[in-house]
Amino acid sequence: MKKTARIIGKNPVLDAFEEVAYFDKIFLQKGTHGPFEKEIRGLAKARNIPISFIPKEKMNKMAAGNHQGVIALISPIPYYELSDLIPKVFEEGKNPLFLLLDSVTDVRNFGAIARSAEVLGANGIVVPIKGAASFSEEAIKSSAGALLRIPICRISSISVAIELLKTSGIRIFASDLNAKKELAVMDFSMPSAFIMGAEGEGIRPSVIRAVDETFIIPQMGKTDSLNVSVASGIILYEILKQRKGLRQ
Amino acid sequence: MKKTARIIGKNPVLDAFEEVAYFDKIFLQKGTHGPFEKEIRGLAKARNIPISFIPKEKMNKMAAGNHQGVIALISPIPYYELSDLIPKVFEEGKNPLFLLLDSVTDVRNFGAIARSAEVLGANGIVVPIKGAASFSEEAIKSSAGALLRIPICRISSISVAIELLKTSGIRIFASDLNAKKELAVMDFSMPSAFIMGAEGEGIRPSVIRAVDETFIIPQMGKTDSLNVSVASGIILYEILKQRKGLRQ
Repeated sequence: MKKTARIIGKNPVLDAFEEVAYFDKIFLQKGTHGPFEKEIRGLAKARNIPISFIPKEKMNKMAAGNHQGVIALISPIPYYELSDLIPKVFEEGKNPLFLLLDSVTDVRNFGAIARSAEVLGANGIVVPIKGAASFSEEAIKSSAGALLRIPICRISSISVAIELLKTSGIRIFASDLNAKKELAVMDFSMPSAFIMGAEGEGIRPSVIRAVDETFIIPQMGKTDSLNVSVASGIILYEILKQRKGLRQ
Repeated sequence: MKKTARIIGKNPVLDAFEEVAYFDKIFLQKGTHGPFEKEIRGLAKARNIPISFIPKEKMNKMAAGNHQGVIALISPIPYYELSDLIPKVFEEGKNPLFLLLDSVTDVRNFGAIARSAEVLGANGIVVPIKGAASFSEEAIKSSAGALLRIPICRISSISVAIELLKTSGIRIFASDLNAKKELAVMDFSMPSAFIMGAEGEGIRPSVIRAVDETFIIPQMGKTDSLNVSVASGIILYEILKQRKGLRQ
């Protein structure tokens, strides 16, 4: 496992923002206040980068030299803004298809989902700042490199993403074990996005209420549902098939 | 991780065979010869249980007491004989669907495949003695318990399985990146089995030549193919959909 690249110290971190570096996370020393803290908070919020406040002792362990109370972890993959990506996909003449992951935290599942999304023609994956898998080297490996090829958008919450997509004329679907309709009878010919929830718990009720339609993948066995990466692959396959005109 | 249960010593191991215990593997001390070795070899061969010959020092480390040169690892899941399972599925009035795994050695992928197979209605999974994932507690966990619910058949080789299935009137398909026809145009209404190969290498040419038809899952992206458990899930979904009459 490669060590995550880091930027240490106030000016280096601010400079990196100028050069459009992608940060996974920013560590600020507990008790940091003042203009620098305000500036970094503002920059981080604008780009949906999570900030963690940690004690000085822990900061000292992370960086031997003078860290000035700030350490930024550089992400191995670039991030897109969903508000930029949506018009870009339309402008490229594509029929948009986005995948939203709500609380999918397992790195291998996240990697496998990104791989399927890239192979089966999705235009981007949207993950919330909190409750997402880390974009680590392991995730990239599990994705067979697809994470470097498919746009990833980080957003403050799934609800914000749903609103943004709806406003752009994109229909929102969700895979839900309590849904009545089967996947195969859904119509994905319009610009679409679908949401996958955490294994076990599924999608939160507040999110379910915000979507346009829910569906279920037909099941026969006694085991409780499919692995989330397998279910995502099946949905992407069904959409690709429909859009290629192979639909019944 | 729970420690694998073991049976140690000549008579206990032979007795266990009488009581239809399921063995994952049998360790024989290097240099073991004579009637006991012949008997155990015969029993193991008849049930497709792999034997490993290992040095005395290693045997001593594995079992502190008097192991008499034999240690058998009990499998956490039962095995079926494919020759018993095929007629059983027909007799139950089912339209058989089997999944053959050729060199799928990753435990998590194996577990996820078993889960999909059970959820999406396959009647059994066939794995060769060599080049299969271990049937460990981790595999059972990855399968969400499905490995305890779907019959698993261990067979001397994939070629033997293909012959046995063909003789029983079961049509053999294989997922192959070089295939011309797409998955969706295949006809799975007959009794069917399909083969999945190792990631990266795919299915061996000798196996491809022995099957009735090959197909490809449509792909759009630049990433090289899908994860094997995702691809298996998509195929199982397509078959279930066709058999439920949802086919175009």
